[in-house]
Amino acid sequence: MTLVLPVEDRRNPAAALQPLLDLVQDDMAEVNEIILSNARSDVDLIPELAQHLINSGGKRLRPMITIAGARMCGYRGRGHVKLAASVEFMHTATLLHDDVVDESDMRRGKMTARLLWGNQASVLVGDFLLGQAFRMMVDVGSLGALQILSDAAAVIAEGEVMQLAASKDMHTSEEDYLAVISAKTAALFAAAAEIGAVISGRSMEEQMALRAYGANIGLAFQLIDDALDYSGEAAKLGKHIGDDFREGKITLPVVLSYRRGNAEERAFWRRTLQDGAIEDGDLAHAILLMRRHAAIDETLQRAKNYGQLAKASLDIFAKSEPKAALLQAVDFSVNRVS
Amino acid sequence: MTLVLPVEDRRNPAAALQPLLDLVQDDMAEVNEIILSNARSDVDLIPELAQHLINSGGKRLRPMITIAGARMCGYRGRGHVKLAASVEFMHTATLLHDDVVDESDMRRGKMTARLLWGNQASVLVGDFLLGQAFRMMVDVGSLGALQILSDAAAVIAEGEVMQLAASKDMHTSEEDYLAVISAKTAALFAAAAEIGAVISGRSMEEQMALRAYGANIGLAFQLIDDALDYSGEAAKLGKHIGDDFREGKITLPVVLSYRRGNAEERAFWRRTLQDGAIEDGDLAHAILLMRRHAAIDETLQRAKNYGQLAKASLDIFAKSEPKAALLQAVDFSVNRVS
Repeated sequence: MTLVLPVEDRRNPAAALQPLLDLVQDDMAEVNEIILSNARSDVDLIPELAQHLINSGGKRLRPMITIAGARMCGYRGRGHVKLAASVEFMHTATLLHDDVVDESDMRRGKMTARLLWGNQASVLVGDFLLGQAFRMMVDVGSLGALQILSDAAAVIAEGEVMQLAASKDMHTSEEDYLAVISAKTAALFAAAAEIGAVISGRSMEEQMALRAYGANIGLAFQLIDDALDYSGEAAKLGKHIGDDFREGKITLPVVLSYRRGNAEERAFWRRTLQDGAIEDGDLAHAILLMRRHAAIDETLQRAKNYGQLAKASLDIFAKSEPKAALLQAVDFSVNRVS
Repeated sequence: MTLVLPVEDRRNPAAALQPLLDLVQDDMAEVNEIILSNARSDVDLIPELAQHLINSGGKRLRPMITIAGARMCGYRGRGHVKLAASVEFMHTATLLHDDVVDESDMRRGKMTARLLWGNQASVLVGDFLLGQAFRMMVDVGSLGALQILSDAAAVIAEGEVMQLAASKDMHTSEEDYLAVISAKTAALFAAAAEIGAVISGRSMEEQMALRAYGANIGLAFQLIDDALDYSGEAAKLGKHIGDDFREGKITLPVVLSYRRGNAEERAFWRRTLQDGAIEDGDLAHAILLMRRHAAIDETLQRAKNYGQLAKASLDIFAKSEPKAALLQAVDFSVNRVS
């Protein structure tokens, strides 16, 4: 379809993630142990449900960025693994609550926790994981990292509320959309990257550089996600293609198509997304309109631009293996097809 | 009905709260300002929904205990007000999620947020308030207080999951019930009290004494709540009487009545609470069975016992105005009829 990737990237974009995977392998083994032991509870429902999410094949990009960021900053302690586990728990808690809010049935090719254990358990186990995340970060004892991560927790929730308020609202502008994804997605990537510099005691300039890296890779990541939701490759994401469409989420491909559409097209978007009156064939028609206005291509292009910004953010750091891995992780995030 | 209070207490149990209210008045004015400013957001839905809860007439017993505990420990800084506000936010976030999980329509005589703004907004604004709570406590900078409060956050969620798992389960024992209320209610009271000693740099013995005070007053508080749900006075709580009954919550009055009931009575409890097949007149019959087995009286008696333990926990502290206020707050918690 409309993917504008070079052929070699399209064939195996995951290869770009390999340097990061190799770099963090040992530390991530420890992160995984910390994750498993902090998902334990005498209340059976908690480990059952948490395991389901933990084993559901997420890429763990956020904690890997924390580890690689700390490594790039020459960090010598062991606090980075606990902070990385905290970051993943914050993310997992968000996913649990997201699926409840979006009434999602599938995530990463598996049934969602809310479908298997119910909305009630998903809300409460999400709260438990968030509590455990804070416990772990307190344990590390870095007030700087605590401030960054607690800020992120509030901002993420704010972004989710913003998204809920913008849902089904065709007046959502590109700026509104960017504000939503900055808060709901980029904020945690930014925090995940920044804390690596903070616990290493690096300068504010380096801290802000890593933060900018995280924020920009996060924006790119979300833009790709939102493009893939309307592309033939989306099945590999474990999402139904068109989930966002059915949920009335106003993502960039929609914003661009609506803005460029004629009266008839706008009526189509209002009927389907605003009024939720979706009929057979509407998703295919939505994709057709997006192609007509190059909305997917342009969304992918924006992702590439943010990817470039992410790379440029790291300019102040000397050449190193962790830096190279972080740079290549940008290529992965921008070129992935699932 | 079955309330076994001395006449003077029954007439005006709120009088016992007055010394605490007087003691913390100035600090609580500051706590309220902090609460209001931290419920702000550019996302309109957040302050709207948060205000609804903040103005809904809660007694703010938990933050008042933090303030009074710190005062009793001779605390001279200003961190106690921010920590008190954090405690109230943690509580408010829990209420928001609780109402979603319990599908409650009324709280404190008002429609619940989930009824007015929906379950989705309630889940996400709860997450936001929890994030803000952590932000505020990080701001105070006491790792000791952070550890206590983050532990509490995880334990509260664990208690809520435990309660969900025990819901509609007639095998719930008195021990199970106590484990649930220890986690879901007493843990936050315990943390609220303990942090007063921690930020004052008092000894571990004094810290543990305040913690025990909080845990025991919390248990008493919840036992009274659970008794009032089956008593004529419950209307003043702003709950429907019998909410717990309709939700299939296995509280102590039920546990005691079931244990002491004959075969026919047990069949009644299974039909109504386990199977949820509730008919007209069932609530009245449930209350009749509770009276027959003195289940409400005994629940109130347990509350009094925990109240005594709460008071005794403070024995190691010298006589002072804050101590007297904390002791009288126990009488309020045990004797309240709403």
